Amino acid sequence: MERVLPPGMSAAAFDRGLIALRAVVGAQWVLDTDEDRETYLDPYATGDRRAHAPSAAVAPASAEQVQAVMRVANAHRLPLWPISRGKNFGYGGAAPRLPGSLVLDLGRMNRILEVNEKLGYCVIEPGVTFYELHEHLANAGIALEFGFPNFGWGSAVGNAMDRGFSFRGDHSSSICGLEVVLPDGSLLRTGNGAMAGSPTWATARHGFGPSWDQAFVQANFGVVTKMGLWLHPVPEQVISVQVALDQKDDLAWFVDELSPLLMRGVLGGNIAISTATNSIIDNSQRKDWYAGPGALPDSVVTRMMSERGLGWWNSTVRIAGPEDTNEANLKRVLAALHRHSSRDYPVSRATGASQAARGPVVNRLKVLNWYGGRGGHVGFSPVMPASGAAVVAQFHRTKLRYDEHGIDHNCTFYLNGRTVTNINLMLINLDDADHTARTGRLFDALVADASAQGYAEYRTHLDYMDAVAASFDFNDHALRRFNERVKDALDPNGILAPGRNGIWPAAWRGQRNK
Amino acid sequence: MERVLPPGMSAAAFDRGLIALRAVVGAQWVLDTDEDRETYLDPYATGDRRAHAPSAAVAPASAEQVQAVMRVANAHRLPLWPISRGKNFGYGGAAPRLPGSLVLDLGRMNRILEVNEKLGYCVIEPGVTFYELHEHLANAGIALEFGFPNFGWGSAVGNAMDRGFSFRGDHSSSICGLEVVLPDGSLLRTGNGAMAGSPTWATARHGFGPSWDQAFVQANFGVVTKMGLWLHPVPEQVISVQVALDQKDDLAWFVDELSPLLMRGVLGGNIAISTATNSIIDNSQRKDWYAGPGALPDSVVTRMMSERGLGWWNSTVRIAGPEDTNEANLKRVLAALHRHSSRDYPVSRATGASQAARGPVVNRLKVLNWYGGRGGHVGFSPVMPASGAAVVAQFHRTKLRYDEHGIDHNCTFYLNGRTVTNINLMLINLDDADHTARTGRLFDALVADASAQGYAEYRTHLDYMDAVAASFDFNDHALRRFNERVKDALDPNGILAPGRNGIWPAAWRGQRNK
Repeated sequence: MERVLPPGMSAAAFDRGLIALRAVVGAQWVLDTDEDRETYLDPYATGDRRAHAPSAAVAPASAEQVQAVMRVANAHRLPLWPISRGKNFGYGGAAPRLPGSLVLDLGRMNRILEVNEKLGYCVIEPGVTFYELHEHLANAGIALEFGFPNFGWGSAVGNAMDRGFSFRGDHSSSICGLEVVLPDGSLLRTGNGAMAGSPTWATARHGFGPSWDQAFVQANFGVVTKMGLWLHPVPEQVISVQVALDQKDDLAWFVDELSPLLMRGVLGGNIAISTATNSIIDNSQRKDWYAGPGALPDSVVTRMMSERGLGWWNSTVRIAGPEDTNEANLKRVLAALHRHSSRDYPVSRATGASQAARGPVVNRLKVLNWYGGRGGHVGFSPVMPASGAAVVAQFHRTKLRYDEHGIDHNCTFYLNGRTVTNINLMLINLDDADHTARTGRLFDALVADASAQGYAEYRTHLDYMDAVAASFDFNDHALRRFNERVKDALDPNGILAPGRNGIWPAAWRGQRNK
Repeated sequence: MERVLPPGMSAAAFDRGLIALRAVVGAQWVLDTDEDRETYLDPYATGDRRAHAPSAAVAPASAEQVQAVMRVANAHRLPLWPISRGKNFGYGGAAPRLPGSLVLDLGRMNRILEVNEKLGYCVIEPGVTFYELHEHLANAGIALEFGFPNFGWGSAVGNAMDRGFSFRGDHSSSICGLEVVLPDGSLLRTGNGAMAGSPTWATARHGFGPSWDQAFVQANFGVVTKMGLWLHPVPEQVISVQVALDQKDDLAWFVDELSPLLMRGVLGGNIAISTATNSIIDNSQRKDWYAGPGALPDSVVTRMMSERGLGWWNSTVRIAGPEDTNEANLKRVLAALHRHSSRDYPVSRATGASQAARGPVVNRLKVLNWYGGRGGHVGFSPVMPASGAAVVAQFHRTKLRYDEHGIDHNCTFYLNGRTVTNINLMLINLDDADHTARTGRLFDALVADASAQGYAEYRTHLDYMDAVAASFDFNDHALRRFNERVKDALDPNGILAPGRNGIWPAAWRGQRNK
């Protein structure tokens, strides 16, 4: 991809910035060929890829180099877009919000600095992948685990910074202690890490005074160079209960029965429940099932269900802990399910160690082949209260929109206890312009529908950050004004991740989508 | 108490401010008689009470009035010190850090705005006491409970804002959603509350973008006028295991055995383990046991133990949940205890409902009579890793300091899973100047000892806020500089709680203790 410069910047000024950056990280770590830039594009972009094209990338090797890069960026007014491994797929990948930003690629900083088995934590750099963390624990025989999302090559730090989650729940909840390079290049440690040599940096959730970890998450106030993450002791045993529910509206009682068990801590993490289509797209293509236009008819889904032994809704309820309490909780889970349906719920048992040994997977990428052509995907992810009625209404509303726009429906609801997060995957054939455009319109319709319910997304694609941020409208967007007031105080030149999640520094505020 | 004005302010300027405040809240809610001021002093102050004397108090009835008060404070440069119920005993009570501050008393704002039994939360105003919350739940027959500290008349919001805790763990962890009046008088709602009409304000921990709740805790960036708090479903059953350990060093194995059960979620909340003296001070006076000078000798403690059937260490381990898993977990707890000692551990069982019905207590105030004279107390509260060796070393180090300074030792260690919080209560006879002075020196010695270990306090008295904040020394006090940078951006006139937890706005920075 040809070079796209930051808005309003001359090539000469930009080149002077690159020279200064090369002096900091070495010439080979300033990446500015057309091929380099290609690497950092959003592979699944539905619109013009130039809208989120980087000008170049810079890859520092240490927190000190990040500090120096930040100082250069201030001196030359270079907007930086930090990424860890850049695998934020469905939400923009490695690409920046503001075109012409330099990608600040932290992938070289990939040390696992500490793992404490007794106290259940690790301290790691942003370049550490889920795979590397898993392998490190397995090789060292450490009986701790971390949840992992669908793509094991992603960064544990980056995923937590975007509030990614897994069956273990929200990964940002595991954050305990950050080292952050602030936009002015100074170095901050949060929590008890702010006391030099503190042994409780990654064990005490809050230090003394305000607690900042969660204010750096999903924001653009600093670049995280070290993160404490709480790891989970590997449970003695894991019982898995397979649940398949035939009727669409069964989702309501499932949410109402299982959410209280999560809220009470009887079950840990979260529970995913997905449409049959969500399993089918993993291992087959649309043409294997249906060749017609428009959205997949329900009759085809019914055929999928019967051929594959699936329900409309499918879930694996995970009961993890010691064997004795697991068996007691299994009775409770089965009793809840049998209050509504007498069907069989297959139960399997495994040691926690054997489950933990499996590690992260990647096969989820196969879904991109669903439509054929160049595959892409976008996720729409609203959060709602853990009420069966609210959840099933959200499902029907969304399914109708998919049908209206002629897009094949699939989704997952994640039960978290007090809330439910709904991930709607939109698969795309990027070679089909009409399909791609309809997906965009579907997304807009879903945002509007959710806003009308007072539901916001927990995370969104670069293209929708301004729209989602704007949906937080209380008191004339008081939260956005607050975010930007803090942003301006910490980043007066607006060099760090302008526009991330709708937070624009003064220097770039005119770039906000109207 | 005679009026103490803000440093550098004339009586005429101050009086102009009071006139403007009366216009906002009504004359009867600006409290400026000597008797009024007396009400807001720290009743247990060990030093000169003028050091933390308020000039007056103002008691708004609504968030709108708080906004108006804040605007007046900016116009007249009046420093405000917000309190909820002002029961922050041991840490300064209702008294302000900066002498001459106006106490912003939020006690009139005491509505319980919402309780959602199904989703397990409430939304309340700062004036709501633990008693009132408990009574509300009991009268409405709602099977939810909140933990409560020793004093039931305190504010649930205020306690959470100071990171108070109970057997249910850190109360600030229950915060989900705030309404905050910022220092400029504008109104902010955090999390999903920033979307008007959102049904997930108090259920979704984080909204979209940075999450601010924990940055307002223990800080001075805004006045909380509404708070969402997660409530706990009343458990089916509670099993209590009485533990008495005879040897001082038994504490080490207790920490190492029980902390992993908390970390794994087998046990919830935290576990308190206290010295025998900590029970004795509840219900007797020093003169009943010993009349000598200096610290209570160990031989007297041994007599207390044998007469009252106490161990050196005493704990009630609480197992809460369904009966079947409770019984399984009881076996696990008893097995852990019996690995180290074959003594008897009495077990009692009660329904969760009967335990919840008990509600908050107040009898803990009796400890103030220990020495006789006008009683006071101060708490020293460092946090350390959940390692038996670290904890028992902390105990010995602290006990030695108490003995050296001739102060009777008592303490509690709270096991939280990955950390242990140590509350050292210093009881004082405020009529005894020498005793009071020795207590001050003991406190200084304890701060220095803990800092040498890299242990910080989680919370401290007004007199020690600057010292504790200064002990966070990484990168030339980077955290303090960061806190104050945000403070200056949000509160340019420095009107809100100057000096709280060592955070000084530019206007008052010269007031920091050296």
